[in-house]
Amino acid sequence: MTKPDNFHPFDGDHLREECGVFGIQGTTDASAHTVLGLHAPQHRGQEAAGIVSSDGNVFHTKKVLGHVADNFTSQSVIDSLEGDAAIGHVRYSTTGATELQNCQPLFAEFASGGFAVAHNGNLTNAQHLRRQLVSQGSIFQSTTDTEVIIHLIATSHFRTLMDRLVDALRQVEGAYSLIALTREGLIGVRDPLGVRPLVLGQLDGAYILCSETCALDIIGADYVRDVEAGEVVVVTRDGKLESFKPFKPKAARPCLFEHVYFARPDSLVDGLSVYDVRKRIGAELAIEAPADVDLVIPVPDSGTPAAIGFSNQSGIPFELGIIRNHYVGRTFIEPTDQIRHFGVKLKHNANRWHIQGKKIVLVDDSIVRGTTSQKIVAMMREAGAAEVHMRIASPPMAHSCFYGVDTPERDKLLAARMDVDAMNDHIGTDSLAFVSIAGLYRAAGQSEGRDPARPAFCDACLTGDYPTFLTDQASTDDRESQLTLISAASGDA
Amino acid sequence: MTKPDNFHPFDGDHLREECGVFGIQGTTDASAHTVLGLHAPQHRGQEAAGIVSSDGNVFHTKKVLGHVADNFTSQSVIDSLEGDAAIGHVRYSTTGATELQNCQPLFAEFASGGFAVAHNGNLTNAQHLRRQLVSQGSIFQSTTDTEVIIHLIATSHFRTLMDRLVDALRQVEGAYSLIALTREGLIGVRDPLGVRPLVLGQLDGAYILCSETCALDIIGADYVRDVEAGEVVVVTRDGKLESFKPFKPKAARPCLFEHVYFARPDSLVDGLSVYDVRKRIGAELAIEAPADVDLVIPVPDSGTPAAIGFSNQSGIPFELGIIRNHYVGRTFIEPTDQIRHFGVKLKHNANRWHIQGKKIVLVDDSIVRGTTSQKIVAMMREAGAAEVHMRIASPPMAHSCFYGVDTPERDKLLAARMDVDAMNDHIGTDSLAFVSIAGLYRAAGQSEGRDPARPAFCDACLTGDYPTFLTDQASTDDRESQLTLISAASGDA
Amino acid sequence: MTKPDNFHPFDGDHLREECGVFGIQGTTDASAHTVLGLHAPQHRGQEAAGIVSSDGNVFHTKKVLGHVADNFTSQSVIDSLEGDAAIGHVRYSTTGATELQNCQPLFAEFASGGFAVAHNGNLTNAQHLRRQLVSQGSIFQSTTDTEVIIHLIATSHFRTLMDRLVDALRQVEGAYSLIALTREGLIGVRDPLGVRPLVLGQLDGAYILCSETCALDIIGADYVRDVEAGEVVVVTRDGKLESFKPFKPKAARPCLFEHVYFARPDSLVDGLSVYDVRKRIGAELAIEAPADVDLVIPVPDSGTPAAIGFSNQSGIPFELGIIRNHYVGRTFIEPTDQIRHFGVKLKHNANRWHIQGKKIVLVDDSIVRGTTSQKIVAMMREAGAAEVHMRIASPPMAHSCFYGVDTPERDKLLAARMDVDAMNDHIGTDSLAFVSIAGLYRAAGQSEGRDPARPAFCDACLTGDYPTFLTDQASTDDRESQLTLISAASGDA
Amino acid sequence: MTKPDNFHPFDGDHLREECGVFGIQGTTDASAHTVLGLHAPQHRGQEAAGIVSSDGNVFHTKKVLGHVADNFTSQSVIDSLEGDAAIGHVRYSTTGATELQNCQPLFAEFASGGFAVAHNGNLTNAQHLRRQLVSQGSIFQSTTDTEVIIHLIATSHFRTLMDRLVDALRQVEGAYSLIALTREGLIGVRDPLGVRPLVLGQLDGAYILCSETCALDIIGADYVRDVEAGEVVVVTRDGKLESFKPFKPKAARPCLFEHVYFARPDSLVDGLSVYDVRKRIGAELAIEAPADVDLVIPVPDSGTPAAIGFSNQSGIPFELGIIRNHYVGRTFIEPTDQIRHFGVKLKHNANRWHIQGKKIVLVDDSIVRGTTSQKIVAMMREAGAAEVHMRIASPPMAHSCFYGVDTPERDKLLAARMDVDAMNDHIGTDSLAFVSIAGLYRAAGQSEGRDPARPAFCDACLTGDYPTFLTDQASTDDRESQLTLISAASGDA
Repeated sequence: MTKPDNFHPFDGDHLREECGVFGIQGTTDASAHTVLGLHAPQHRGQEAAGIVSSDGNVFHTKKVLGHVADNFTSQSVIDSLEGDAAIGHVRYSTTGATELQNCQPLFAEFASGGFAVAHNGNLTNAQHLRRQLVSQGSIFQSTTDTEVIIHLIATSHFRTLMDRLVDALRQVEGAYSLIALTREGLIGVRDPLGVRPLVLGQLDGAYILCSETCALDIIGADYVRDVEAGEVVVVTRDGKLESFKPFKPKAARPCLFEHVYFARPDSLVDGLSVYDVRKRIGAELAIEAPADVDLVIPVPDSGTPAAIGFSNQSGIPFELGIIRNHYVGRTFIEPTDQIRHFGVKLKHNANRWHIQGKKIVLVDDSIVRGTTSQKIVAMMREAGAAEVHMRIASPPMAHSCFYGVDTPERDKLLAARMDVDAMNDHIGTDSLAFVSIAGLYRAAGQSEGRDPARPAFCDACLTGDYPTFLTDQASTDDRESQLTLISAASGDA
Repeated sequence: MTKPDNFHPFDGDHLREECGVFGIQGTTDASAHTVLGLHAPQHRGQEAAGIVSSDGNVFHTKKVLGHVADNFTSQSVIDSLEGDAAIGHVRYSTTGATELQNCQPLFAEFASGGFAVAHNGNLTNAQHLRRQLVSQGSIFQSTTDTEVIIHLIATSHFRTLMDRLVDALRQVEGAYSLIALTREGLIGVRDPLGVRPLVLGQLDGAYILCSETCALDIIGADYVRDVEAGEVVVVTRDGKLESFKPFKPKAARPCLFEHVYFARPDSLVDGLSVYDVRKRIGAELAIEAPADVDLVIPVPDSGTPAAIGFSNQSGIPFELGIIRNHYVGRTFIEPTDQIRHFGVKLKHNANRWHIQGKKIVLVDDSIVRGTTSQKIVAMMREAGAAEVHMRIASPPMAHSCFYGVDTPERDKLLAARMDVDAMNDHIGTDSLAFVSIAGLYRAAGQSEGRDPARPAFCDACLTGDYPTFLTDQASTDDRESQLTLISAASGDA
Repeated sequence: MTKPDNFHPFDGDHLREECGVFGIQGTTDASAHTVLGLHAPQHRGQEAAGIVSSDGNVFHTKKVLGHVADNFTSQSVIDSLEGDAAIGHVRYSTTGATELQNCQPLFAEFASGGFAVAHNGNLTNAQHLRRQLVSQGSIFQSTTDTEVIIHLIATSHFRTLMDRLVDALRQVEGAYSLIALTREGLIGVRDPLGVRPLVLGQLDGAYILCSETCALDIIGADYVRDVEAGEVVVVTRDGKLESFKPFKPKAARPCLFEHVYFARPDSLVDGLSVYDVRKRIGAELAIEAPADVDLVIPVPDSGTPAAIGFSNQSGIPFELGIIRNHYVGRTFIEPTDQIRHFGVKLKHNANRWHIQGKKIVLVDDSIVRGTTSQKIVAMMREAGAAEVHMRIASPPMAHSCFYGVDTPERDKLLAARMDVDAMNDHIGTDSLAFVSIAGLYRAAGQSEGRDPARPAFCDACLTGDYPTFLTDQASTDDRESQLTLISAASGDA
Repeated sequence: MTKPDNFHPFDGDHLREECGVFGIQGTTDASAHTVLGLHAPQHRGQEAAGIVSSDGNVFHTKKVLGHVADNFTSQSVIDSLEGDAAIGHVRYSTTGATELQNCQPLFAEFASGGFAVAHNGNLTNAQHLRRQLVSQGSIFQSTTDTEVIIHLIATSHFRTLMDRLVDALRQVEGAYSLIALTREGLIGVRDPLGVRPLVLGQLDGAYILCSETCALDIIGADYVRDVEAGEVVVVTRDGKLESFKPFKPKAARPCLFEHVYFARPDSLVDGLSVYDVRKRIGAELAIEAPADVDLVIPVPDSGTPAAIGFSNQSGIPFELGIIRNHYVGRTFIEPTDQIRHFGVKLKHNANRWHIQGKKIVLVDDSIVRGTTSQKIVAMMREAGAAEVHMRIASPPMAHSCFYGVDTPERDKLLAARMDVDAMNDHIGTDSLAFVSIAGLYRAAGQSEGRDPARPAFCDACLTGDYPTFLTDQASTDDRESQLTLISAASGDA
């Protein structure tokens, strides 16, 4: 399996979006477009990929552990995925086991015909529902939360597939952007809070549903709009677009970290240019936490837009102080201690002949465990930097995400273990600062900052304010206090 | 075989340095360091890799078609390459066939013991010498020019290995930076013109020879100095460094394109920071060919330093207008027409939400065939740019290189086929300009520009002024005029 | 995937047993023994293999498309299959698609715990039951008939696993020898007619269930007895053997073709040495259809015992007239016409220097399509045989098997298309004869021959007398006449 | 790499012929025929395979570690090996390292054009010649003795290729059957003693040279004659067959063990049917060493013809007492101790239900180390045999072979360590006997037995009478006595 190089230098110390989805209905090249479209969201998941295609009657499936680019681009594979509709999924496992049966799209043969589904997000009551279903005779083939939805549909007492789907979704909690392929056509669903993104595009009469607009660009499609929180859209086999909202309305709480890190800078997410938001975060940082330095240096690649914003705001020159080795490829299936040690330098190197003797500020998007911030600071000092300051384009992250992002255990999060001064010592910087939550909200278009009664985003990883029940996390006792917290925080009460 | 993404978006339209070398003598971790060191110069060659290690008596070899990172990083491989010395080579084939027997280091068992050699550069009389050797009973195992050197050594009438080596090198023409591993130790040679780079480093008593300083950084070694043109250095098995100059002295002519494109920006080449030279080229461009635009946009990644220099000089903001997809991996072993079409968008995408309606200038390092400049200009226009200008950080390239760089046939070079105005039309830019040869020399530290009688660099690809004989290219008639040209140009007469 | 050479020279023209099973309970080396044990029944299925191991609580699974020997013999695989019990399965797909999800053992997580099952045989009402189960909300993960059993257990209204299993099996028709691994221990079931074999063995306190005794030999275990038709045996986790018979008793009808071809000659099947039965068939043939020839030549390898029996009875010397090429390995993934033509000769060659000018009789076990009998007769004539006679150790096969054997469509069976004289002409023999059904029964220990009212074996492929309903084959109209036929034939009325 | 099952059950305890060759000149399907033809001699070597094809000018090469059947049978490979002539080689390494550069055919580009050669046999002065060549400037690319021949040709002072070839061969000692492909056509050479076989065949105007006649059968070619000892045959590109004998004439001494074990039973070797010779050895054994037993049991597969001969002569029934598992495939890349233990049973099993209580005689072709004879005797006793006798179809083998057969070190040979009585005890038989050297010669057509002054075969492994110098084995002192021995034994004096 090819392991690509990453946006961020240090794999082990960054959040990972678990999944990306792409679907299209109404073109003879459905699977070819899906293969292309899945290239865009591979930053959202690269350990497994799958595509299901259909002409409405027959469904074709190919799923692999590995990359879209390595497994789906031959003509024979594309030809085998026949049909005028297709959905695809790329996945980043949170668990150790990325087994093939856990790869998506999941497929089931219902009495009413075939049904394939791809899911971005995570359910917070999947374990609970699964136990119920198994006790009633359902047999699970995977350990994914998504399969719960399929069994809820199969055993629903409603008659039509759409009624069964809604019946199923009303029972689940958590975050989900779903695309499904059925006999009737392509279905897209975004959960009532709209935690994970989902956009609608169009190309010569065909409709596309996908995680980010950059996937539309890759196939030359037009962006139509974002699917709304709590909305179900259906693209029928005869090309009509239908929309309805079967859930109890709630104020949307899309993930704020999409803007900070997950989404690609060339995407538009919920109406905002990701690149521009990141530049504005950098500008906010330059105002909130200026640095008296010679050079602004991005931690490549995700820190670059914020670094440009910081440089523009501060007037301090932007320079490439860290050079990526683009050719690392898959490294170190069986790393030796000797070599693991050099991991940072293999992927990146200080541009020592330019920075020696200079005072620098490093701009990065976030700190998770802090392990690699330490290394990169040390690398800059070894290369001769006179002072090393660091500015972070997000507030301290002190809480786990349960909505489809791979966060470490809470006690591994640096910000859960210490305050900013302690972090500064730990990482070895001359100064360390994070953008404020207010500054981040401003950069994301909320000029008033964060309204605690009605926050515009899910920012649970930064604030601990979880917008849904966490049934599988909670014991009975916890549950009650959690209920209170949620009511207060989401303003639903 | 993993095919990594590249510095430049469009593989087919860029020069490729053929080779990178690395060698170390005097440490118990010789092969581990060589594996690490070969990660750095993979931008110099990524289709094949090889390492030979030795304790002076026994030699161990591993060569593969593929990447160092994919094939040399397991403990078992490193353990199998025993010894306190090792040399390695990464290679970018110029010919279609990247067969294993053409991979380096080449190895021969002489009567005097084992001899391994790795070569960066290209000989210009290899065919001529090969015919002579074969007619005398030598049997070649590869089609490489490097093997000529080995047979010249094997059949030399001199007695010691060092005398035989010098005897052999006196017969060859062209460019070569060699590292060799023998019973006596590690040898480094740079041809009399010093066309290809070679640097000397040191780590805890061990000596290193390698193509670029970034390979020293990766193992934490200190840069000592560049090997000089025409110099032979020997690191003996007991750790002494010897140096001599057995060739007739000439004025050095190191390759100018190392500074423009080949070398990594974090390297120091012949005393100059590559990154700083590139920034200065951008500044020269901004002076020579200003652009009335809103944004300066680098063509990633090799255009970035020049774009920063252009932005700083002009005061026009530097912005990421093109976003790389870092996850492309190996693409399209069997590409379909459908998909090949999307090659540019798979690897890069316009940051459309930021650039639409803006006047932009794209900064790139060079134009070879021009095919992909066309595509990238079209991509920016589709994304809504109001005007698209282009500035190139090298003069028009109208001549082939015969010194170890993979250039297309001359009639494929855009600058050999048309002038700048025609190129502007062809590529579809609103304006197009190249840095002047004088500006380029100034950026490379020659404040007077280029002295035609004694140019400081090999710039044959830009000027047609080849500093050596081209025996294998020339017919007898050509030869004479060529001689005149060389005498005149190099000032040796 | 490695494709081994086969018992019979001509893959396309022979029946194939679909499956072989092996299970063991009560030893620390359960998976190692299962790997060994599955080597024996690979003549029963070689396209896929799987093992599930367990300590009663945790279940470990590995399934592959390919051979046991190629995929299960490394220490790491064996170590990963932990537990004191294991079951395994090798499979020869009857359908084109040998997909991994169709490989066995199948596994399900019931509310009562894990359940793995491996099945030899074929159900004749699986499609019918599947439709019912899907309409009630069951989701199938494979296209195998075996999965029906699992869903019947999951949705059974009985309480204990054993009651649920019996409830499920009472609903299925057809042939099944099952082994299952549960929290309680190892379970073995043989269907009420005992169509497919299943034997019980013992090794140092551990119990083994497997298809043939040759698998017991391979691990050094003792043969205890055959599991009886309609018997359920349970080896509990504390080592006790329990047995019960939950089905309505019927006269057993084990498959007669196990003795003719499927079973290995070193196995004991239902009390009979397969090798001795085959020799006796050869002797019956020599009596029923003598041949005036110089040499008796086996068609290797399955015709050899019958040829020895024929030689002993007739006094005509047994000679190797056909030599196998043991080194063919996997042949011709992409065969050319040119080469396919030579298929027979690649695998076998006439021993021409010995047979030329001789009159010979070829002894083979059966004729399916007849295509390769033609080729082998032609090969012997080309090699110079004076006369070529053929004797077949089974009666003409004119009916398909629906009990787990891969037979071609009926109209492809040579004996369904023509009588013996026409077959003689078609194949090109000087004479052709088949053993009589009476002779075959005598050789199999039924000294009176076949009792039509109460035949001792399932011989449906030879007689058309199917001992069970064929629900999935039958329309309603057919069903009734079928019922009559079955009642008459099986004597159950 | 696929590892096929073998003629003999116990890989480690049998001699291995090192190589097989096949060449054809004069057909458009040269490479396809060579692929087919190499299937036959795979019992002569299965670890590596290679083919060189040519139209006289351009040479195409493919060599692999692995089987012909796994690597050469796709249309694309066959198409890539263009030309009307081809030679191929299969190889069984004697050394640990089966590296690709040691695979044959070897190829060299001489001044006179391409030259490919495939060699069956082994030179006994290769090391000596190699040292000379290296000291004169030749560079070896392999460790094979065959490459010596190529360098001798390249550096010969003669003018024509044929003169150079003869010049080279006059300097080498040992055994060689060579086929070479040159600009002029196909060349075959058999050394002056004719130790290794080489036959000439014809197919529609094309000529074939190959190790055994069974390769002619596979492509439907006619056997013409054996190439004679000391003969050079040339098939010119215009289809003429030329023959000459450039060496000093000697009495031929072809390898006797070809008849005992190496050759396939369906081959004719030097005019004798291998199958018939083996049957006659069995008959000689039955006369020389009768056994009072119930059954004659072959050790499969190589013991079978001798067992038939023993049975016919003695009147004791021939029975399959050992059953092969045809499906073993490649076993145990990483065998566990547990499993290695079962090696014998995985490949073979006693036919216990037939042999229990019987007195048996096992007939095998030879005993090398004796390790597996022990195991097989133990297996028969465990299966219940009342008495186990063994008869061996060759005399005790007490000497190493230096002519292209992989024999263990002399002190590993059981017959070099003990006499027959001690071997009987060691192996655990009730009686053990070997055929006499006289009986073996009689079976091979020498009715007078062996003439010590002029033996008809090379039987050095049985008698220690080596028919050539063993320069590489011998010290100077030994050399003289060796000379005497050779003169005496070969009658050349």
